[in-house]
Amino acid sequence: MSTQLLNSESVVERLARTRALMSQNGIFALLVPSADPHLSEYLPAYWQGRQWLSGFHGSVGTLIVTPTFAGLWADSRYWEQASKELSGSTIELVKLVPGQPGPLEWLAEQAPEGATVSVDGAVLALASARTLESRLKQRGAVLRTDIDLLNLVWENRPALPVQPVYEHLPPQATVSRVEKLAQLRETLTQRKADAHFIATLDDIAWLFNLRGSDVSFNPVFVSFAIIEQARATLFLDLNKVGAQLRERLEGEGVELRDYAEVNAALASLPAATRLLVDPARVTCGLLGHLQPEVKLVEGLNPTTLAKSQKSLDDAVHIRQAMEQDGAALCEFFAWLETALGRERITELTIDEQLTAARARRPGFVSLSFNTIAAFNANGAMPHYHATEQEHAVIEGDGLLLIDSGGQYLGGTTDITRMVPVGTPTPEQKRDCTRVLKGVIALSRAQFPKGILSPLLDSIARAPIWAESVDYGHGTGHGVGYFLNVHEGPQVIAYQAAPAPHTAMQVGMITSIEPGTYRPGRWGVRIENLVLNREAGTSEFGVFLKFETLTLCPIDTRCLEPSLLTREELDWFDAYHAQVRERLSPLLAGAALEWLLARTEPFSITG
Amino acid sequence: MSTQLLNSESVVERLARTRALMSQNGIFALLVPSADPHLSEYLPAYWQGRQWLSGFHGSVGTLIVTPTFAGLWADSRYWEQASKELSGSTIELVKLVPGQPGPLEWLAEQAPEGATVSVDGAVLALASARTLESRLKQRGAVLRTDIDLLNLVWENRPALPVQPVYEHLPPQATVSRVEKLAQLRETLTQRKADAHFIATLDDIAWLFNLRGSDVSFNPVFVSFAIIEQARATLFLDLNKVGAQLRERLEGEGVELRDYAEVNAALASLPAATRLLVDPARVTCGLLGHLQPEVKLVEGLNPTTLAKSQKSLDDAVHIRQAMEQDGAALCEFFAWLETALGRERITELTIDEQLTAARARRPGFVSLSFNTIAAFNANGAMPHYHATEQEHAVIEGDGLLLIDSGGQYLGGTTDITRMVPVGTPTPEQKRDCTRVLKGVIALSRAQFPKGILSPLLDSIARAPIWAESVDYGHGTGHGVGYFLNVHEGPQVIAYQAAPAPHTAMQVGMITSIEPGTYRPGRWGVRIENLVLNREAGTSEFGVFLKFETLTLCPIDTRCLEPSLLTREELDWFDAYHAQVRERLSPLLAGAALEWLLARTEPFSITG
Repeated sequence: MSTQLLNSESVVERLARTRALMSQNGIFALLVPSADPHLSEYLPAYWQGRQWLSGFHGSVGTLIVTPTFAGLWADSRYWEQASKELSGSTIELVKLVPGQPGPLEWLAEQAPEGATVSVDGAVLALASARTLESRLKQRGAVLRTDIDLLNLVWENRPALPVQPVYEHLPPQATVSRVEKLAQLRETLTQRKADAHFIATLDDIAWLFNLRGSDVSFNPVFVSFAIIEQARATLFLDLNKVGAQLRERLEGEGVELRDYAEVNAALASLPAATRLLVDPARVTCGLLGHLQPEVKLVEGLNPTTLAKSQKSLDDAVHIRQAMEQDGAALCEFFAWLETALGRERITELTIDEQLTAARARRPGFVSLSFNTIAAFNANGAMPHYHATEQEHAVIEGDGLLLIDSGGQYLGGTTDITRMVPVGTPTPEQKRDCTRVLKGVIALSRAQFPKGILSPLLDSIARAPIWAESVDYGHGTGHGVGYFLNVHEGPQVIAYQAAPAPHTAMQVGMITSIEPGTYRPGRWGVRIENLVLNREAGTSEFGVFLKFETLTLCPIDTRCLEPSLLTREELDWFDAYHAQVRERLSPLLAGAALEWLLARTEPFSITG
Repeated sequence: MSTQLLNSESVVERLARTRALMSQNGIFALLVPSADPHLSEYLPAYWQGRQWLSGFHGSVGTLIVTPTFAGLWADSRYWEQASKELSGSTIELVKLVPGQPGPLEWLAEQAPEGATVSVDGAVLALASARTLESRLKQRGAVLRTDIDLLNLVWENRPALPVQPVYEHLPPQATVSRVEKLAQLRETLTQRKADAHFIATLDDIAWLFNLRGSDVSFNPVFVSFAIIEQARATLFLDLNKVGAQLRERLEGEGVELRDYAEVNAALASLPAATRLLVDPARVTCGLLGHLQPEVKLVEGLNPTTLAKSQKSLDDAVHIRQAMEQDGAALCEFFAWLETALGRERITELTIDEQLTAARARRPGFVSLSFNTIAAFNANGAMPHYHATEQEHAVIEGDGLLLIDSGGQYLGGTTDITRMVPVGTPTPEQKRDCTRVLKGVIALSRAQFPKGILSPLLDSIARAPIWAESVDYGHGTGHGVGYFLNVHEGPQVIAYQAAPAPHTAMQVGMITSIEPGTYRPGRWGVRIENLVLNREAGTSEFGVFLKFETLTLCPIDTRCLEPSLLTREELDWFDAYHAQVRERLSPLLAGAALEWLLARTEPFSITG
């Protein structure tokens, strides 16, 4: 009996117990989002209730349970994984497609008049709660957020994480927390707000120049913060903070209180308080503790915009981190090329070797996400992760997709490269070349400062659409500075709403990662990170351009040069020349040889 | 004393009388949009109150008058024109910039608590009324829509138009009104609506296969329509319809009633009626006549989507109209090239000659908009129109921009071409070439069916942005079939919200018209119309591509060939080859010679 089946059986059991409890409480539908009180992407085990109840391990998905139906809504990245993992669970995979009704719309359609829909308010964003409540109201149904049903059925729920908190120090921390707090308070004054409540962990880590390891891959710690003009309060497990650090923080006007005290602190804010909150970045459950008279001033967390705009000083460290990361990749690829065909290599070996290469580099702290090493058909699942139970051996012919990244004290990396195994087919080469054309088109783009980032997506997609190909995920996400590998507010995805906060500003770092996925066959993705830089000012305003930060050869053996235009070849060769120049000093021996071979001008050799 | 000054004086006077009346009625601010009860782009004189009160003749602009301030909000197309025309009027030009507060936001910011803001509800879209009302409410201010202040100060207000209504007949009318009505009723059934109220004139003209000439350039007639399952009622001045046509309409189940009876007809709809209306295409004033129990079913007018999707049969007629239009343009350009330098030619002469050339073509009905013939600095005003009082003589060196179009029984045309006069400068050539690159980039694009059209804009802009240039208007608007030259629902403009109704569908016709405007110097725009066609289906879905409909050479003497890539030159030459092939049979003599000379392959001659 496979592990898979075991999981499925226990999911059926858990659903039965959940439904019994729903029935006792007069609840028609239970909604379990992938969320915690911090609205994090990676959830500490304590909040992985959706995974526990559904058996689906993907990072994003929404579960709805009614007496007669259970469905998991997931976007195209997870369709393959979800249909495997949900098999035998009685939970239906509902494919989330842009422009089609999502789980909230489904609930609003299905809820009978008078029905109660339950969600744990502690993990439901204020903005989502409002949308859901108003839709249910139209149907005569009711939203209930004051009960955590899951907690009642979840036996042996894991504990909260307890990892230590440490400082992000100069030279990599280029602005002090005192200065950041002063800037934030200035913004509060401008917004006529008395206080600001922050629940998002990367905003807090950035603001206080603190880091932790409570969450996989994101160097953050579980906490809340309330900033007022007179004081700044950080709510966290006090055991996480050493005596020296505590003293320094208190000396700089940061008060520490226990994590559990945040509810009381919110409740004790004076009734006349004007409280700045970001409805997408706080949950309705937490705000439920406020006195009803407290006036919400709503807007993007000021820290979210501030941390997205890396300074020139940050950029210096980021470029160094990219060089170290690129050098680690060269060492890894040199090993891989020699080892392929000589020893047994699986997707897991790749993860180990690549992680080890990164770990040898100065400034390395951890991976920035789970390495994706996906051979042939596995590459068709954009968020595939090999496990001990299921993974492919790299042998025969095909394409190996490697998407990986590291956290360095001076920056966060995220890179995807394609590796030819044996002899890739002409169709595989065409897929890789077309995706590369998308990378080049957007990398070369210049655009008005302030353009809403989703509008740039079609520049990357045009050369891919040109051959009737498309991909279901966004083209680019924001990336933090030794922080989350996915951060806002900008996003290059036509599926995203071009809202004002998505405007492109100097210093933002974004990924460019178009792809092509052929289920059951192979997947292609090529990814670089780019930095928004000023391109100059004309009579038409200020324009921005991208500096490509990521430094690593793109293997020409996966490419069909006749499909590239003169201009694309020129970009490609210039990129490789820069990769060679900047990585050579960090490499020796086989890795250096590999770099030199893989950065030969393509126009001539191709 | 110039006419300009006379107008300005009388605007000052009119404002004074308006303010006196506002004061008597306790009104803080009067808002006068460019609008009529049909929310038309071109307004019959009867509804040109904004123009009468402000002196600004541009087609789009919003006037706000308070006791101490008068401002006209206009987008970048009109800035040059408005600042000229408002000079001396005491009315301030407020530049409307995407992403910046518009007139409604301004009002919501400025209105003191308790203030009353007045707009004539008869000309205020329901959607706008709701937005304005909710914003004012937040300020504690009130919206009043039941009084037409303008009518009270407007002496000698023009009469309503009385032009005859005629049928759009086969073969150009490819679907009968009986069939269109049947399809519409099917949609009503699907939407669970009992009735549908239509106020937009092109929707009505399309649905009933009727045309008129009440409005400049748009072959429509002033009317309303109410469609129920059992009957269809058309409200219009009954004198406009001849006895035979009336009989035919009545025979096909179309009841005719007087225009003024629409209010009573709306009032007499039963209280239980579910009425389908498009909040952006009906005014709050008209719906104010409904019984309060009538339930609004809101959505895009079904006719708006249906008429945007031209059939294959329509396309046959459109291609013929484009050939006739292109032939007329060749005759005109051949004349222009010979006449330049030999006789005195002004922007007005150009309009006359071009209109005459079109008028000689079979199927021609009228112009589809005011010809824009704009030399050098005048070209920098995207919606410039030469007048008897102010126009340029075409002499010396520079660029002449000609944007023109015709209404034919088999289609509507809209084309912009650049004409070199004397010797264009290298900078002018670079501007023209860059704009052409934008046209080519989007014309060659392929994209998923259903993509939201605003998202395609950056494909046209990318080559223009690449050199720190941009333009303030959209790249493309929908175009009717012997109907309005501007029609929805699709629009290629990053300034527009990518709403679901903007999705690209087969059969839509859209303009591609990027530009570059250098105030006081010159303006460049190149415009073709394109038809959405199926490009095929792959495992990634259905893809669409554009067929370029417009047929007329693009003058290579304005271009710098070294700036074009191999792929762009190939597109350009293939386009010119097609223009030559399809227009040659319709031309003779000098016009044919001109066509042949101007469609020589650029790759070789350039």
